[in-house]
Amino acid sequence: MSIGKSVPRIDAYEKVTGRAQYTGDLVDRNVLIGKVLHATIANGLVTKMDISKAEKLPGVVKIITCFDVPDIPFPTAGHPWSTDPAHQDPADRKLLNCRVRFYGDDIAAVIAEDEVAASRALRGITVEYESYPLLLTPEEAMREGASLLHEDCPHNILKHTTVEDGDFEAAIREPGLLKFEGRYETPMVQHCHIEPVISFAYLESGRVVVVSSTQIPHIVRRIVAQALGLPWGKVRILKPYVGGGFGNKQDALYEPLNAFMTMQLGGRPVKLELSREEIFFATRVRHGEKIHLTSYIRPNGRLVARKYTAYSNQGAYGSHGHGIAAKGTNVFRQLYQDEKARLVDIFTVYTNTTTAGAMRGYGVPQAVFAIESHIEDMAKTLNMDPIKFRFMNLMPVGFTDPFTKNVNYFDSFRQCVEKCKTYIQWDEKRKHYQNQTGPVRRGVGMSLFWYNTAVWPIAIEISSCRMVLNQDGSVQIQLGETEIGQGADTVFAQMTSETLGIPLENVHVVSIQDTDITPFGTGAYASRQSYVGGMAVQQTARMLKEKILRHASEHTRMLVSNLDILDGTIVLTSYNNKALLSLGELATEVLYSPVHAEHLTAESTLQAKSNAYSFGCAFAEVEVDIPFAKVKLLDMINAHDCGRLLNPQLAQAQVHGGMSMAIGYGLTEQLRYDEHTGKLLNGNLLDYKLSTIMDHPHLETVFVENYEPTGAYGNKALGEPPAVPGAPAIRNALLHATGVGVNTIPLTPHILFPAFKKAGLL
Amino acid sequence: MSIGKSVPRIDAYEKVTGRAQYTGDLVDRNVLIGKVLHATIANGLVTKMDISKAEKLPGVVKIITCFDVPDIPFPTAGHPWSTDPAHQDPADRKLLNCRVRFYGDDIAAVIAEDEVAASRALRGITVEYESYPLLLTPEEAMREGASLLHEDCPHNILKHTTVEDGDFEAAIREPGLLKFEGRYETPMVQHCHIEPVISFAYLESGRVVVVSSTQIPHIVRRIVAQALGLPWGKVRILKPYVGGGFGNKQDALYEPLNAFMTMQLGGRPVKLELSREEIFFATRVRHGEKIHLTSYIRPNGRLVARKYTAYSNQGAYGSHGHGIAAKGTNVFRQLYQDEKARLVDIFTVYTNTTTAGAMRGYGVPQAVFAIESHIEDMAKTLNMDPIKFRFMNLMPVGFTDPFTKNVNYFDSFRQCVEKCKTYIQWDEKRKHYQNQTGPVRRGVGMSLFWYNTAVWPIAIEISSCRMVLNQDGSVQIQLGETEIGQGADTVFAQMTSETLGIPLENVHVVSIQDTDITPFGTGAYASRQSYVGGMAVQQTARMLKEKILRHASEHTRMLVSNLDILDGTIVLTSYNNKALLSLGELATEVLYSPVHAEHLTAESTLQAKSNAYSFGCAFAEVEVDIPFAKVKLLDMINAHDCGRLLNPQLAQAQVHGGMSMAIGYGLTEQLRYDEHTGKLLNGNLLDYKLSTIMDHPHLETVFVENYEPTGAYGNKALGEPPAVPGAPAIRNALLHATGVGVNTIPLTPHILFPAFKKAGLL
Repeated sequence: MSIGKSVPRIDAYEKVTGRAQYTGDLVDRNVLIGKVLHATIANGLVTKMDISKAEKLPGVVKIITCFDVPDIPFPTAGHPWSTDPAHQDPADRKLLNCRVRFYGDDIAAVIAEDEVAASRALRGITVEYESYPLLLTPEEAMREGASLLHEDCPHNILKHTTVEDGDFEAAIREPGLLKFEGRYETPMVQHCHIEPVISFAYLESGRVVVVSSTQIPHIVRRIVAQALGLPWGKVRILKPYVGGGFGNKQDALYEPLNAFMTMQLGGRPVKLELSREEIFFATRVRHGEKIHLTSYIRPNGRLVARKYTAYSNQGAYGSHGHGIAAKGTNVFRQLYQDEKARLVDIFTVYTNTTTAGAMRGYGVPQAVFAIESHIEDMAKTLNMDPIKFRFMNLMPVGFTDPFTKNVNYFDSFRQCVEKCKTYIQWDEKRKHYQNQTGPVRRGVGMSLFWYNTAVWPIAIEISSCRMVLNQDGSVQIQLGETEIGQGADTVFAQMTSETLGIPLENVHVVSIQDTDITPFGTGAYASRQSYVGGMAVQQTARMLKEKILRHASEHTRMLVSNLDILDGTIVLTSYNNKALLSLGELATEVLYSPVHAEHLTAESTLQAKSNAYSFGCAFAEVEVDIPFAKVKLLDMINAHDCGRLLNPQLAQAQVHGGMSMAIGYGLTEQLRYDEHTGKLLNGNLLDYKLSTIMDHPHLETVFVENYEPTGAYGNKALGEPPAVPGAPAIRNALLHATGVGVNTIPLTPHILFPAFKKAGLL
Repeated sequence: MSIGKSVPRIDAYEKVTGRAQYTGDLVDRNVLIGKVLHATIANGLVTKMDISKAEKLPGVVKIITCFDVPDIPFPTAGHPWSTDPAHQDPADRKLLNCRVRFYGDDIAAVIAEDEVAASRALRGITVEYESYPLLLTPEEAMREGASLLHEDCPHNILKHTTVEDGDFEAAIREPGLLKFEGRYETPMVQHCHIEPVISFAYLESGRVVVVSSTQIPHIVRRIVAQALGLPWGKVRILKPYVGGGFGNKQDALYEPLNAFMTMQLGGRPVKLELSREEIFFATRVRHGEKIHLTSYIRPNGRLVARKYTAYSNQGAYGSHGHGIAAKGTNVFRQLYQDEKARLVDIFTVYTNTTTAGAMRGYGVPQAVFAIESHIEDMAKTLNMDPIKFRFMNLMPVGFTDPFTKNVNYFDSFRQCVEKCKTYIQWDEKRKHYQNQTGPVRRGVGMSLFWYNTAVWPIAIEISSCRMVLNQDGSVQIQLGETEIGQGADTVFAQMTSETLGIPLENVHVVSIQDTDITPFGTGAYASRQSYVGGMAVQQTARMLKEKILRHASEHTRMLVSNLDILDGTIVLTSYNNKALLSLGELATEVLYSPVHAEHLTAESTLQAKSNAYSFGCAFAEVEVDIPFAKVKLLDMINAHDCGRLLNPQLAQAQVHGGMSMAIGYGLTEQLRYDEHTGKLLNGNLLDYKLSTIMDHPHLETVFVENYEPTGAYGNKALGEPPAVPGAPAIRNALLHATGVGVNTIPLTPHILFPAFKKAGLL
């Protein structure tokens, strides 16, 4: 009924009128203010803290130091729990840490009656430290004799894995192979969600309640309980509307500390809201990676063997850890198929920077930048058409991942590429821009990308849903999966409408998740929600429909098999869909029946044991001002096969947002740390050059709709993929324009100037 | 595990620390203030209203008059809906009424930015009326030519019913019968719940949300929708903690008007909180009744035939209507069994007083006062022991109600009476106080009572429940039934603990009802919740337990039939209840199972098609100061058979509260209307003599625990019965003390002085 239509967001009116309630809107009017004291060294120990002066300041209620917190290390990553210790995330931090691991680490917290008193209290605390040498990069941190950030990780290596497909050493001995090498570097960047990191906490009947702007309420519940040493049922998390997360809120950030604060005060409500500056240095960032690719290739362009070595900068704490680098290697192992062998060697390394965690793409943007830059350079060297070269080595249709059992059912790459080529006038421009001279030149470039939906079989994939039928035939739907601005509630409503056969306006989504009552789902990440959550919605709607039709059969004396629900009406399918009675009439009769009364609801858990590839590409056209070492993006198109489009307008918006992130990733965004102190230098929205609509050309989006066979509605991932291919497409357009392949992003003048100079363009 | 134990209320800590959130605590900080303009005539028409001055006052946002509201008459009674029009409550009022039917009727409403502006606006409105003669009593209202309050009710009779058991006229022709007559009058009284009538409303995604202090959130949802002409699913009601209701909040009071207010302002939040004075005159009261009993009896004391005629003062609007008088006649038809015949003739009549609705006892206090006074007088005239006389005519053990199929399984009356006789030293005092003279005399009296639980088969009885298992083996429970101060949440938690086999502290009751997500239940009335709600809890807990044990079987490889849950542990019953694993361990394994993951929850609707008698008695001792015409209560005991006690301490508290209400009913409480204007004269807590702890002697409570065979936990009604027998017991003690039988309550000096004078005592 409504799948595939561009219905308006169901929360549009609430949001544009300012009526939608976010965490900050729900805070108790007598809430106390919590603030965190951050370390002013990057590596070392807090040896002493004097809070005596701060404690006496007016309005100060309580000060907690790193010496006061429970000795319970806990993990923070928003992953589903695993009862297998080998699959658990690193539990490597406490609520506050006397062992300081980055400039800004949490060493104390104050609770005061208002913001001013809290800020004064922070300034009133004096701290003494013992300092260790600064370790800002994996190289520094892995060096012999470097101080260990976490005692149980020698050389500061959180994890190191190698994978070999085929016999790499044998493969590269084949005579006549050409060898290519490239070293690629991607920056740490921040999510820059609009709504800050914010929560408030209180006690209720001896249980701790945290209201938080999070992507993962059910997971945060578990982590808060772990951090505080509580039975998990003693914690309740509420998630109101969320103003963006992009993966930063796929971590338990300050909820555990916030919960601890209220418990220290017998349950008085305490709010903990981070400033934008704190969000930059003290929450999570995308892992910066250094990737070294070596390829062995026949002169005809066929890849024979490749090697992928990567160093992923984890920052101070484990968070999502090695999963990021590992997911990136899946691109390497699958997007292009070497004839003989592949070798992966990846390290995730603790350093004294902001902790790296989940961010839109989850390791794929880094890997795709390296892989798609590398393949472009090889094509250029071989003087081959870069697209033809790619397709010569691409994962074939029919490819099946032996681990995930994912199947590449369709020729999506070719279909996406064709659409983009036409739009950007690829053939014409590739030719036209061939022999440019002069200071300003243009070029077109492109990048494919690989992505897969959801996390099975690396972790469990479950989603639960409940539906409640009202007397008027409308339905409430509750889901553990979270609306965080992406439009999840709207597509869940469309799915419910579709499967139940009722008008969209009769679906009411319970947007707030309350872990006490919301069916369990793991939340917004891995572009999983419309895929796995969609399966749960469909399964549950089918259960409810079956119940409805059984009652309709009792009421109409017609066989269930001859009945259906169409547009909110019970119809007799065996007689031209004759309308028998409205669903509302039936629901009212059923609820108030003196014979067989029932409040019709349905609830179920769906465990997904599939996931799906979600492929596509980006094409970009740039104009390069060589003397100014500046790249101007002129045009850009993303093409996605995300299966059937649930809501074209929302899909387009999703892609636009991702493209914007990719543009920033490619051209302007990076976090810079002071090399002497480790202090983040540009952690604010003035100095951090976030990509905005002012920096974009027209953003074109096209879709290829191959109905995904494993999806509930033919759909698969679209949340993260749009953020992936943009940066390498821009980088390859720059290569086309100038002949210079730049392997470090963002492509700022500081990077381009020496590169152009080295290439003799300046 | 915990049924039958005096566990502390689960909300005790929240309540004594002031942390429990009531409706007023949840109001948005920018809420607008709504107030109602009440008519200053009791019967007539609003002919004109001038709001022009009031509208211009600063801070006034909107004024709505009775000329502006939808022409939709709606019912207000908190009854389950019936799709049979013959069983629906009278729909006889609009949101605001230009046809004024009592002094204080709602004729306009103002919405302003604060309380002061709202009050000024009320004063700024000028109203012109056309007045009709005042009709304060059923007699006046039924008089030929009286103006009709509701056009479709001739003689202002809302309903008139007659029932004849046997052939009354034939029966009374038996020779030698003695005829007794008595006329009894009971007052209108008010509930005087601590928390006022309060709600606030706003729009959310085009739906109207009302947060209200109500006993019946799901019913209020239906009524608000009816009153506004909305599909029922477009309304959402939230019920926070409630500070008492006693039946007053078993009506939709101001929720429909409150909802209309916010809709007039595009959804801006509006609060509507009544003052104590408004609650007295503008909400609901207990029906005042005039009951005429005529008995035909053999000289040996055997009742042969009786007639019961009653006029029930409905006040201005239908509310619960004839149901009150009708329930009273069930006492008459069942408590004592006439050998040959019974005749019932009852009228419920509209008058120009406050609308009468539900109040603890629901018609039974009125009827029991008449019946138990009447039987006492007959015993005295016959010179028979009043208890012996009662038992000679009492409903026998084994009695089955042909309509409800209720069975009197036990000799509860005798067991209750024996306990009370012993406590009050009945035999000794009856003899000792026999021949008193002098101005101050003492007496002992008693009264039986009849009550039945729940409303089946007069209306449907359904209750739905949902349970959610947490990873630590604790459980949330959601129920449509409401905690309103009586301890419902606590006994539901005990029931859950009992049936699931988990510790009480592992049961978390979701106390707030939200009609969007809370399973449907009709709410707190008819003393139904622990009976019907208890059945729903048990059924749902059994479903959840079955699911748990099926997973436990998968996990332990043991047969389900050999497994059980004891104190939160899965045990092997076939091997000495050996502990296999904790429920928490199992729940965690199940939720995160890579093989078969499930969020274990259970939900079900229970439709009860039984109800149960709940019998007992009260005994009182009084001291009467004849010259001052004052009765002082010296001692009082209530005995109840409410089946198995769920929580003895809570049960005792329930009885204490009921006894207090009965004392006020018997001795001091009544609403007095000005005979010329119809204005309520004593509608405030100074002039209305509410019974308080200062007026009580020691209140003794005893129980007889006959396990109720139809109950889920052997339990049946205890909510309302305690309020029933107190007044007639006091009245009969006065009779014993003075020989004067007074048939009008409350027994104030104004009533007693002329009675004593007439009896020659003064």
